[in-house]
Amino acid sequence: MTRFFVEPAQIQGQQVILTGENAKHAKVLRLKAGEQVLVCDGQGRDCLCKVVAIADAEVTLQVISVGDSQTEARVKVSVFVAFPKADKLEHVIQKATELGAFEIVAFPSARCISRPDEKSLGKKLERWQKIASSAAEQSGRGRIPQVRTLPSYKAALEQASKADKALLFYENEQSTTLRMALDGAYTSVSLLTGPEGGLEESEVSQAMEAGLQVCTLGKRILRCETAPLCALSAVMYDAGEF
Amino acid sequence: MTRFFVEPAQIQGQQVILTGENAKHAKVLRLKAGEQVLVCDGQGRDCLCKVVAIADAEVTLQVISVGDSQTEARVKVSVFVAFPKADKLEHVIQKATELGAFEIVAFPSARCISRPDEKSLGKKLERWQKIASSAAEQSGRGRIPQVRTLPSYKAALEQASKADKALLFYENEQSTTLRMALDGAYTSVSLLTGPEGGLEESEVSQAMEAGLQVCTLGKRILRCETAPLCALSAVMYDAGEF
Repeated sequence: MTRFFVEPAQIQGQQVILTGENAKHAKVLRLKAGEQVLVCDGQGRDCLCKVVAIADAEVTLQVISVGDSQTEARVKVSVFVAFPKADKLEHVIQKATELGAFEIVAFPSARCISRPDEKSLGKKLERWQKIASSAAEQSGRGRIPQVRTLPSYKAALEQASKADKALLFYENEQSTTLRMALDGAYTSVSLLTGPEGGLEESEVSQAMEAGLQVCTLGKRILRCETAPLCALSAVMYDAGEF
Repeated sequence: MTRFFVEPAQIQGQQVILTGENAKHAKVLRLKAGEQVLVCDGQGRDCLCKVVAIADAEVTLQVISVGDSQTEARVKVSVFVAFPKADKLEHVIQKATELGAFEIVAFPSARCISRPDEKSLGKKLERWQKIASSAAEQSGRGRIPQVRTLPSYKAALEQASKADKALLFYENEQSTTLRMALDGAYTSVSLLTGPEGGLEESEVSQAMEAGLQVCTLGKRILRCETAPLCALSAVMYDAGEF
């Protein structure tokens, strides 16, 4: 079924009006009165709707039923990535969204080659959020993960440590596996990975002090854009998503 | 430790000579006599070597010890992908190599938009194999996965079905999870995924007849380049790799 993301405020009462890009998209799809579509508020609420009227710049829908999205993961996974080069971050945002991440948080670390300056950050965040929206739509999610940035490594550790399982992946860790780290019950997970040049040893110690568990993703060295997606896939599997 | 891939025939007796690209790479790294390096035959055999002499176009190494690579996965995973658009296939080859795939096999299916013609295939395979080599080197693998193509969907099913666990991922499958499909012991796995437009229902039936098990990767629709990598990550996790 076709899905449209709208602002939460647009879903009120028994009618939803699609405007702008959504209305254009509805035209491209040649939706007809009587057809059913799914309208999502991007925060996990889905409305089953019926097309009532199609005008030039807007499409009127009648709400049939409202409920929690059926495609969101039960486990809440926050993906913390040290700023990689721009195209890699975009890749991680798109794929992590498809794979069901709750949010994607980018932060600076010592060996980051790329880190956006304050001035350009606003525009970049807008672009990143758009990538997440469009990946959420394509993959049929009911929630658009938020893309956020943090000003420091310390802030990333602080926030990451709040999850039931707060994990950092380090290529020099050999004994603690992800499986060991996921032992026991959990409903929220943070996955923190380093930039192209890896995390510094002192940063790994700092993370342990902040309460993160350091673990390995196996004997092969994964690129900075592959590690978070590999970990996310494994966590979703471990959590019983597939 | 720096790794060099050489032809298996180059590892004979107590000496290995690095030539061509390898010798150039050694120069860039400013290797010095006495330093240790790892020489891999790309088929799972690693040689610990010591630099003996550095000449203009070749570097002479002395073999210290030979053994099985320590970075190869114990489980043999063959990744069967229906031809996606070119850049996506390259992406899958690079990432699947990092993630430890045994081989990557591309094949045509009904809804493939892109399928290379006979004439261009030779050059393309060469390029794809290079991507696998360089990803194997970067991730520290001891084996370069082979990139192969097959002429038909039927051939893909035939070959995929030989693994202990022969799995096809289908977005309309809702009950059988990957976890169920992986229940019990296994040493080899085939993962088969469709192209951009998905597999046709008749193709899925055909796969079941050929002995493949149809399963889901969860409630979200994954892109054709994401699905095989998500499945591969999960299988490696399930097999105890991390």
